[in-house]
Amino acid sequence: MLGNFSYCNPTKLYFGKGAVKYLKDELPKYGKNVALVYGGGSVKRNGIYDEVVKILAECGKNVAEIAGVMPNPTLEKLYEGMEIARKNNTEFILAVGGGSVCDYAKALAVSVNCEEDPWEKYYLRFEEPSCKTLPVGCVLTMVGTGSEMNAGAVITNRATKLKIGHVFADEKVMPVFSVLDPAYTLTLPHYQMVAGIYDIFNHICEQYFSGEDDNTSDYIAEGLMRSLLHSSRMANKDMNDYEARSNIMWTATWALNTLISRGKTTDWEVHMLGQAVGAHTDATHGMTLSAVSLAYYRHIMPYGLKKFVRFAQNVWGVDPAGKTDEEVANEGLAALEGWMRELGLAMNITELGADEGMIEAIADSTLIMQGGYRVLTRDEVVKILKESL
Amino acid sequence: MLGNFSYCNPTKLYFGKGAVKYLKDELPKYGKNVALVYGGGSVKRNGIYDEVVKILAECGKNVAEIAGVMPNPTLEKLYEGMEIARKNNTEFILAVGGGSVCDYAKALAVSVNCEEDPWEKYYLRFEEPSCKTLPVGCVLTMVGTGSEMNAGAVITNRATKLKIGHVFADEKVMPVFSVLDPAYTLTLPHYQMVAGIYDIFNHICEQYFSGEDDNTSDYIAEGLMRSLLHSSRMANKDMNDYEARSNIMWTATWALNTLISRGKTTDWEVHMLGQAVGAHTDATHGMTLSAVSLAYYRHIMPYGLKKFVRFAQNVWGVDPAGKTDEEVANEGLAALEGWMRELGLAMNITELGADEGMIEAIADSTLIMQGGYRVLTRDEVVKILKESL
Repeated sequence: MLGNFSYCNPTKLYFGKGAVKYLKDELPKYGKNVALVYGGGSVKRNGIYDEVVKILAECGKNVAEIAGVMPNPTLEKLYEGMEIARKNNTEFILAVGGGSVCDYAKALAVSVNCEEDPWEKYYLRFEEPSCKTLPVGCVLTMVGTGSEMNAGAVITNRATKLKIGHVFADEKVMPVFSVLDPAYTLTLPHYQMVAGIYDIFNHICEQYFSGEDDNTSDYIAEGLMRSLLHSSRMANKDMNDYEARSNIMWTATWALNTLISRGKTTDWEVHMLGQAVGAHTDATHGMTLSAVSLAYYRHIMPYGLKKFVRFAQNVWGVDPAGKTDEEVANEGLAALEGWMRELGLAMNITELGADEGMIEAIADSTLIMQGGYRVLTRDEVVKILKESL
Repeated sequence: MLGNFSYCNPTKLYFGKGAVKYLKDELPKYGKNVALVYGGGSVKRNGIYDEVVKILAECGKNVAEIAGVMPNPTLEKLYEGMEIARKNNTEFILAVGGGSVCDYAKALAVSVNCEEDPWEKYYLRFEEPSCKTLPVGCVLTMVGTGSEMNAGAVITNRATKLKIGHVFADEKVMPVFSVLDPAYTLTLPHYQMVAGIYDIFNHICEQYFSGEDDNTSDYIAEGLMRSLLHSSRMANKDMNDYEARSNIMWTATWALNTLISRGKTTDWEVHMLGQAVGAHTDATHGMTLSAVSLAYYRHIMPYGLKKFVRFAQNVWGVDPAGKTDEEVANEGLAALEGWMRELGLAMNITELGADEGMIEAIADSTLIMQGGYRVLTRDEVVKILKESL
């Protein structure tokens, strides 16, 4: 059943080699006081920082820097950015980096003028902004999260060991524009590239593995998965394959800009498990997802058997002739596992620094979602985490 | 090769049964003087007109009606609408109908304040608007054209027998919102339903059959085609199948809102042939496309063989074992033909009122596109039209 929904994604995307030049068209539309948000030193080493700063200067902007945004941006860092933005009367936020930097910029955009504590309001009570939010633009340098065209913003509270994502309902929280230059992603280490690829794949799975019907959303999701399998294998062979990297970048955007979730309930339990692992190990997001995925999918497979059979056939080309549904579904998951090993993904949480003694604490940090084929009990969370060791 | 591109589709969509209620949220955002654009009597018979007029009154709008917009909206009708809109100081255009009504509303939106002749400027010189354009909202009652989420507007010049579509580059020409209620499409006659379905399918083909690479766009296109095959067969069996009709409606939007053309050249020659047939016969748009498609695709198949092989396998499930590429490709086109006959589409232009004596004139009205697998000569246009008789 394709349920009722609304859809609006106004983000303007500039895609391709040299697309950063379009900043010159976009920046003049917004205020003079810009907060430039970025992460570690990589954007300085590869020259992207210099390119962006030059354009900001040409556009006559006053720039306040918010540097050092970490892979799992923390609440403390958000407070720090709010102070800088308030002091500088920031009117526009320009994020230069990967998904964490974009997420952080959006969290900042809804928090600068917020009179309450943003953690309480947005991440514990999941409220929408009631203050004026700032417009955000992104120059994407890493692929995976889809943050460049959605209203999601994940923030980690180190004190309470909670990593929570809020997908805002208001499209005003989405970036007003994003620059997507696949060439920017070529310098990324292999580990980060494949972690991003799995993040993309899992975003599609989280939306695909819900509901019983043959929605258009499911067919688009299968197309995206097949495209990603094709391009990821090319990129894994040759990381400098621009064609492969550009299709991966484009797939990532559509994997998580709400399109393929329209009319569906969606699951997101792998992300809840992975984010809990991330909050306790600070491991790379995509790897926390790969490390828990197979145990989770094998656990829920009997509850969504029909969809796992479809997944095996339509995504992995499993021939169902003479096989039971369970055999077909298992063959699909085995094919998924084979591809994950081929890419060199983390296959368990032990390699990410977790151990048996942390399982209960990770389980405590794991939110239980309602939209998938099985609503987990706490015992099942513990079981899946143990199987992921 | 996924080329450079930009993408922006800000149209807000309200999808599902009863979605017309969201007019109450949207209309207050725009000016008081509304032009209500609709076609024949069907929206009056099925109650949609009354529903919309009631909401317009509740929102305190001054309504000027532009009724009687025909299936292939004419330039004369556009001039008439411009006069009405100018006289009433129209600030917002609300289209209630199918693709022709939405197209007409957009053509009107760029013409009301245009100081030049809109046919000359937009349809002969293909220029962008240099005047203030009016915002357009759509309440869609017929499915197929994708007009509800794109910046395209086809207008027919009866005097010169030219039916020309202009897809404006500026996203401001796109509807600011569209209401998509699948229940509104249930009352459509079977002939209109299947014509719309083929229009959707052909929109996907026009974008799919170009380029040599395994773009993400191609994979999404295949997903959309497979979804449409599935839903169209359900709807053909039971026209009241809401689930099927809603997936068809959703597929139509994504078939032609620019997504699957990103990074590709695209073809559109079937539309040029079909529109030329339409300009000379006034036949239903989707049927003009189906009537010329097979002759065209069989003609260009050798020039894009690899893609036609892929089409056969990925869309129609043709097993390539022991077959030449030509055999696989032909089997794909035979499967397409089978599905077209199953739906009851027009299979030649004779049934649409064309005859051999009109071929030269139709060929004269056929624009030659540059982006497909073969740039046709005039002789080839004549040959394809004769084979379509």
